[in-house]
Amino acid sequence: MKRTHHCNELRPAHIGQTAILSGWVHSRRDLGGLIFIDVRDREGRTQTVFDPSDLSKETFDRAAALRSECVVAITGRVRRRPPGTINPKITTGEIEVAATDLEVLNMAEVLPFPVDDPEVASKVNEEMRLQYRYLDLRRPEMARNIRLRSKVATATRVFMEEQGFLEVETPILFKSTPEGAREFLVPNRRDPGTFYALPQSPQQFKQILMVGGVERYYQLARCFRDEDQRADRQLEFTQIDIEMSFIERDDIYLLIEELLRRIWKVALGIDIVTPFTRLSFAEALDRYGSDKPDMRFGMELADFTEEFRSSAFKVFSGAVANGGVVKALNAKGVAGATQGQIETMTEHARSFGAKGLAYIKVENGEWKSPIVRFFSEAEKAALTKKLAIEEGDLILFAAEQWLTACEILGKIRLYCADVLKAQGKLRIDPKR
Amino acid sequence: MKRTHHCNELRPAHIGQTAILSGWVHSRRDLGGLIFIDVRDREGRTQTVFDPSDLSKETFDRAAALRSECVVAITGRVRRRPPGTINPKITTGEIEVAATDLEVLNMAEVLPFPVDDPEVASKVNEEMRLQYRYLDLRRPEMARNIRLRSKVATATRVFMEEQGFLEVETPILFKSTPEGAREFLVPNRRDPGTFYALPQSPQQFKQILMVGGVERYYQLARCFRDEDQRADRQLEFTQIDIEMSFIERDDIYLLIEELLRRIWKVALGIDIVTPFTRLSFAEALDRYGSDKPDMRFGMELADFTEEFRSSAFKVFSGAVANGGVVKALNAKGVAGATQGQIETMTEHARSFGAKGLAYIKVENGEWKSPIVRFFSEAEKAALTKKLAIEEGDLILFAAEQWLTACEILGKIRLYCADVLKAQGKLRIDPKR
Repeated sequence: MKRTHHCNELRPAHIGQTAILSGWVHSRRDLGGLIFIDVRDREGRTQTVFDPSDLSKETFDRAAALRSECVVAITGRVRRRPPGTINPKITTGEIEVAATDLEVLNMAEVLPFPVDDPEVASKVNEEMRLQYRYLDLRRPEMARNIRLRSKVATATRVFMEEQGFLEVETPILFKSTPEGAREFLVPNRRDPGTFYALPQSPQQFKQILMVGGVERYYQLARCFRDEDQRADRQLEFTQIDIEMSFIERDDIYLLIEELLRRIWKVALGIDIVTPFTRLSFAEALDRYGSDKPDMRFGMELADFTEEFRSSAFKVFSGAVANGGVVKALNAKGVAGATQGQIETMTEHARSFGAKGLAYIKVENGEWKSPIVRFFSEAEKAALTKKLAIEEGDLILFAAEQWLTACEILGKIRLYCADVLKAQGKLRIDPKR
Repeated sequence: MKRTHHCNELRPAHIGQTAILSGWVHSRRDLGGLIFIDVRDREGRTQTVFDPSDLSKETFDRAAALRSECVVAITGRVRRRPPGTINPKITTGEIEVAATDLEVLNMAEVLPFPVDDPEVASKVNEEMRLQYRYLDLRRPEMARNIRLRSKVATATRVFMEEQGFLEVETPILFKSTPEGAREFLVPNRRDPGTFYALPQSPQQFKQILMVGGVERYYQLARCFRDEDQRADRQLEFTQIDIEMSFIERDDIYLLIEELLRRIWKVALGIDIVTPFTRLSFAEALDRYGSDKPDMRFGMELADFTEEFRSSAFKVFSGAVANGGVVKALNAKGVAGATQGQIETMTEHARSFGAKGLAYIKVENGEWKSPIVRFFSEAEKAALTKKLAIEEGDLILFAAEQWLTACEILGKIRLYCADVLKAQGKLRIDPKR
């Protein structure tokens, strides 16, 4: 037998028992003639002690030759740690294993980076971590991610089955379909000049399954898109793919809410509250400038179309006359934005077709802006009131067609939030 | 709401309630001025009745226009069927739904083949079934397969998670690996002239995961092999992929036995007995000529090396002198094999390098064979005894190196079993 217990299992109740632990040498310390080896496995770690008076010289010498990440199986007797040496930081900290035998399953080379120190590991560059992927995966942060992913997947499947959904696997080698993204192609050896395509999603299959009477289908489906890689894109990804027959809109809302509730509960032990806040597309765009708004902080978009309809400032009144709107955003506490940051925001506005970006910095009691001199007192009062303008604020405007104005300010809103986040000044509501 | 109950749900306890059923028109019968529509969904079917005295002419006329496989939502009152019309063959057979409203969700074209008649459907050719896949999937046999597959997958995952395994998804777009089969290649647009390969199995990934400390990994993994298609091969398939660290051989045997026990129990309600019979590779080959022997019937291979070591029949004694063996198989009741069948068996022997196939037909109390005249009485007695030769048997020989002899007779054993199966004469032990 390679192990009797895992490394997060032994407690004072096991004292006196013989245990075999298998795993990695997490650390080795030589103290007072003894060798202390902390053995680590997926579940945790346990201290073992090699005492030369209990062991053959050969076994002791093999223990002395161990270094971090060697793979070992250690047999020994579980005993209480001596007074004053209890380690309350680990769950096995009250006991230790007095080694009687050591099997070295594999020696480790000297490590390119430590896996036992999150501080150091977080500074290792990503290429190095990917080159030594097998070491990187041993870090507790990475192990937690893999475990969480697995739990979420199983919770999803159990829930979906409870709800009467059938998991149906659909082919990966399929034919080309006219969807949005570029497809990966696979040459077909049996018929030269023809190709399979990797599916962008199981869209056609699930429609056939519905027509075929499956009624409730789900799959954790692999999708492929030959896109240039960006922050939130990769070549292949997995989605929870669902299709239902004979339902109304609220049936799918309810299903997804309950699914997410289950996932959070099973995987993280967190109770989330349902039903979720519901926003129409129009309201989400109008208030946050996004169809996936981050609602954990404020800085909502406000409308000033009526206030500027007859303004002397022709950029605004002209936009309104042209069927557009005037919208503004108060980026609270961002008045200190650098010229470079203002330029970045202006570029965002231009990327949606705007000519430039009108803004006001509120600093030292003054509204610093080239456009303020065109504003009437009533217009200024309306801005102050509706945007609750205070010292330190940055006010940003968009005078465009409604959707464009929303999108511009939505993008700038997120940018300003990132600026504040970097300064540790963004207040996030963790309950949202 | 599109439905209040599914079509296998209504019972006498629901009598008097209003129900909405959604699904497919399984059948329509016009009897005595009434229209009877059986509505079918994934769960079952329920009879509805359209009575012109209860309905607007317009609704009744729409019901009259329905044909098989139209998609409908029918509202009505649940009532007991009149005496003498109860249908004990379906679980909803005691009630019917007196329709008050009909929504036609979609009309069906005339069907290329019926989906409600297993007899007829089993005779439809496969190309037609694949062309109308969405109809084929509605047949109860197909629906059962899809449901079973889903249940097996979920049972597998729940069991593996209980056993401490983490499901880890591994990439599909990978680099070429030197495994057995031909790989599918995917041209890489970003770096012309280079390719991804689709994985033949997640072999490398799971090894990295073990080295990375995951310890217990599983995945229902998609694998790809660009092979010519045969009976038990296809281009992509899914395997239950498992890897464990720190174990002995029996740990994996135990795991797989318990997994299969769970699957049979959850998916089919069948208790299978563990531990399974264990055969060494040598014994499996020696007795059945296969490393995946079908043990549900006998016809085991027998060894006659010693008996023929000094035989006057030089083909046998020569093979033994050359380090080979003489093995024989009694295909019970196959003496009537046609010349074509004997030729097929001879081809099987030749495909392993044999020069021909020696055999004896036991018919009318005679051993019909060109080789029997070379056998001594002792040799004949040994054959009769060890193979329990009777009237109607076909005895087949292989005098080759051990592995070749086993493989030849293993293949012929299965062929003879197929011959007997086609005649309805193979006795299969369902408990094995």
